[in-house]
Amino acid sequence: MTESVNIAIVGLGQIGNYLYNEINLKKKSIENKTGKKIKIVAISAKNKNKKRRYKINKKIFFDNPFQMIKKNKINILFECIGLSDGISKKIIIHALKNKIHVITPNKALIAKHGDELSKLAESNKVNLEFEASVAGGIPLLQTIKNGLATNQIKKFYGILNGTTNYILSEMEKTNQSFDKVLLKAQKLGYAEPGNPKLDLNGFDAFAKVKILSSLAYKNRISNNKCIMEGIQNIELKDIKIANKLDMRIKLLGISKIIKNKLFETVHPCLVNKDSYIGNVNGVMNAIILEGKPVGETVLQGEGAGPGPTSSSLLSDLISILQENTKYPFGVPFKKRGSIKSFQFNNYVNSLYLRFEVKDKPGVLSFITNRLAKFKISIKRIIQTPDKINKRATIVIISHKTSEINSKRCLQIFKKNKNIIKFPTLIRLFN
Amino acid sequence: MTESVNIAIVGLGQIGNYLYNEINLKKKSIENKTGKKIKIVAISAKNKNKKRRYKINKKIFFDNPFQMIKKNKINILFECIGLSDGISKKIIIHALKNKIHVITPNKALIAKHGDELSKLAESNKVNLEFEASVAGGIPLLQTIKNGLATNQIKKFYGILNGTTNYILSEMEKTNQSFDKVLLKAQKLGYAEPGNPKLDLNGFDAFAKVKILSSLAYKNRISNNKCIMEGIQNIELKDIKIANKLDMRIKLLGISKIIKNKLFETVHPCLVNKDSYIGNVNGVMNAIILEGKPVGETVLQGEGAGPGPTSSSLLSDLISILQENTKYPFGVPFKKRGSIKSFQFNNYVNSLYLRFEVKDKPGVLSFITNRLAKFKISIKRIIQTPDKINKRATIVIISHKTSEINSKRCLQIFKKNKNIIKFPTLIRLFN
Repeated sequence: MTESVNIAIVGLGQIGNYLYNEINLKKKSIENKTGKKIKIVAISAKNKNKKRRYKINKKIFFDNPFQMIKKNKINILFECIGLSDGISKKIIIHALKNKIHVITPNKALIAKHGDELSKLAESNKVNLEFEASVAGGIPLLQTIKNGLATNQIKKFYGILNGTTNYILSEMEKTNQSFDKVLLKAQKLGYAEPGNPKLDLNGFDAFAKVKILSSLAYKNRISNNKCIMEGIQNIELKDIKIANKLDMRIKLLGISKIIKNKLFETVHPCLVNKDSYIGNVNGVMNAIILEGKPVGETVLQGEGAGPGPTSSSLLSDLISILQENTKYPFGVPFKKRGSIKSFQFNNYVNSLYLRFEVKDKPGVLSFITNRLAKFKISIKRIIQTPDKINKRATIVIISHKTSEINSKRCLQIFKKNKNIIKFPTLIRLFN
Repeated sequence: MTESVNIAIVGLGQIGNYLYNEINLKKKSIENKTGKKIKIVAISAKNKNKKRRYKINKKIFFDNPFQMIKKNKINILFECIGLSDGISKKIIIHALKNKIHVITPNKALIAKHGDELSKLAESNKVNLEFEASVAGGIPLLQTIKNGLATNQIKKFYGILNGTTNYILSEMEKTNQSFDKVLLKAQKLGYAEPGNPKLDLNGFDAFAKVKILSSLAYKNRISNNKCIMEGIQNIELKDIKIANKLDMRIKLLGISKIIKNKLFETVHPCLVNKDSYIGNVNGVMNAIILEGKPVGETVLQGEGAGPGPTSSSLLSDLISILQENTKYPFGVPFKKRGSIKSFQFNNYVNSLYLRFEVKDKPGVLSFITNRLAKFKISIKRIIQTPDKINKRATIVIISHKTSEINSKRCLQIFKKNKNIIKFPTLIRLFN
C-alpha cells in the first residue's frame, strides 16, 4: 500500500455517519501511528440529503456505490449498510474482486456469507475485517484470532446483545412492562425504531455466536439448527420471581464442543445474582471463554451504539494500514474444517416453568402428575394465588431434564382448560 | 523472515520450561496458521542438569547465552530469566543489536528499561514484544495497542497481581492468617518460594501499572514516585471488619490523567462487595479501562502461572511470524511524549483507620479530637472491646481527606502510650 490511502464508506446511517466523523477527527493520530495519510475520497448512501448528525461532504457523494468504486482509486471500503444479502453482499464482492480491503460491522452478512467472502478475500490477497460485527467495543475477534491464538478453546458463553440486556435490566430496575421498556430503548437508540425483531428474537445474538464459534474452533461457519429463543415471552412477572429466587434472567449465547460435535444456542437463562454474568447489566456485553492453557478469560464492554462500533472499525483500519494482510478467520480457508452438530434434543437443563392456572382444586396435582410421568422431578414449587381473578401462578423449578423430554411433556398442557396459557419455560444456566 | 524460523530460549525456570514444551507441542498448529516452520535450535540456563517438569534437549543446551547466539542463526529469542537488569538486559540488548526479535514476560525489566530497549528494537527494525509481562492470559497490551488504538484513554484500574489477590481471597474464605495463607500460596506455586516480597509489597503490580500507563497514554515510561503499598500490613482482622461493612480488600493498581498530569498508584483498597472488582477473586486479574468513544472495557483472566503466561508468549510469537514488525509501545519512540506527575499529596480518599488501643477512658475522645483538628470528619465508628486483654479495636471510616493531611494526622498517634500500634490505613475506592 502506498503512503497515501483512499477510503470509501457505503451506508451513512447511525454507524456510517459516526465513522465518517471519527475518521476525519482522528486522521492525524492514525498517521502518527501508522505513517500513512488517509483520506475519505468517496461516500455513498440511499439518501444524499437526509438529515445527519455529522455533516457530510456532498461533493464526494455517489448515489451508486459501484460508480463510486469505478470513478475513484479506493484502497479500503467500509460497508455500513447492514443487510445480510442484497447490495451489502454485492458491493463487498465487487470491492474484494477489485483488490479493495473491506471492513464491515455487518454480523448478519458475515454469519451467512463469511466463508464465501473470506475465500474471495484470500484469493485476492486483501483483508476482510469484521471486528465490529460482534460485541462493539470489545476487541473480541482479535483476542481469539491473535491473543489466544494457540489456545484450544472448547467453550464460550456470554451476553452478546446489548438491546435485550438493557431491556431485561431496565424491567428489573424500574418494574415496568416489556412493552414500555422497549419503547424507552427505542427512544434511546438502543433498539431499532422500526423493527427491533432481530434483536428481540435472538437472531442477532445467534449470528454472533456463529461467527465466534467459527473463530474459536477454527471451523467453517455452521448451519446448525439449534435452539434460538429471544426475550419476547419474558414478562415482568418472571423477572420478579427470578429476583425472589436470587436469580436474574439473561439472554445468553452459548457454544460448546460436546464429544467432537458443535453445540450452539441462544436462549434466556436464569443465572445466579452473585455470578459474574448475573451482574453484567444495561447495554453491556460480556463473554467468558475457556481455553487451554490460558484458563478462563472474561471480556466485557459496551455492546451497542456507534461509539464502541466505530472504535472497532478504526482498529480494523489501523490493522490494515499496518499492512498485516491476514486471513479473515485467523487461519486459511482451506485449513478450516467442518464439524457436525450436537443433537440439541439431548441438551440437559434444570427448568423454570411458570403456569398460569384457574384456581381450582386438582390443578397443581394434575401438573405435578404429568411432570412425574415424564420423569421431570421437582426441586421447588412456588404457588401464588390471585384471588380476585380466581387464578394462580405456579412456578416449578425442576431437576435436570432433556430438551426433547420437556418439549414432549409441555405439549400436554396445551389442551387443558384449567391452564390459561402455554407455560413459560426458562432454562437455568449451569 | 524465511519460511523456516529458528528460536532460542534463555532461562528455563517454571515459565521457560513450560514454554519450551508448548512450542514443541504446537509447532504444527503454528505452521498452519502462519505458514512458517519453527524450531527451537538453542536453549540456555544456569543449570543444565536441574530437575525440570519437561525434559529438555541437552544437545542444544548452552551454558553461555552469548555463545548460543554466536553459534546459531537465531531469528527469535525468548528471554525468561526475569531479572530487571544484569544478564536479562544484556542478552536482550545483544539480541536486538544482532537483529533478533525478542519476546519476554519480564515486567521488571520493561518497566525499568522499556524505553531504551524499544528504541534499540526500532532502530534495528526488529520486534520487542512483552504481552506476557502484564496480566498473564489476558491479551491486554494488544487490546490497548490495537483494539482500542484510536480511543483516548484517561483512566484504568484493576487487580494486576494474582498472588496477592489469591492471598486476600483465601484469608477471607478460610479465616486463616496472612502467614498461613502465604505458605499455602507458595506451596501452590502462586508465590515465589524464596522471596515473595516483590509480589507482596506492590512492586510487581506497580511495574505493570507503569507499562500500561505508557501504552494507554502513549507516553514514555514514567519515573513517578507515587504511593506504592502492598498487603503486608493487612491482617485477618481487617478482612473480617471489611466483610461486616459489605466490603472487600483488594490490591488495586490505579492510573489516571488528572489535569494533564499522570497519577499512578498501587495500594490496598476497600471496594464494595457488589462491585465488579469486588468479585474478582483468587488468582484472577482484571482491568477496567475507560476510553473515548468506546466506553468502559473490562478484561479479566488468570493472572499467574505458566499456562496463561505461555499463552501470551506464543501470541507474541505468532504476531512476529506474521511479519508484523510493530513499534513495541504501539507508536514510534519519537512520538511518545513525557508527562509530569500529579502531586500525590493531593490524592483524596475516604479512609478506613484501625486503631488498637488500651481500653481506658478518654482514648476514643483523644483520637476523634485529633482527627477533628486535621478536619478529618468521621462517617462511622466501630469499637470492639477485648475485655480479657483490656484492649479495644477502634475502626473509623472517615469522609474524604487528602493524602498529606492524613499522613500528618497519623504521625500524632505514634507517640501515644494508649495506642498500641501505628494505625492501619486502607483507602476506600471511589
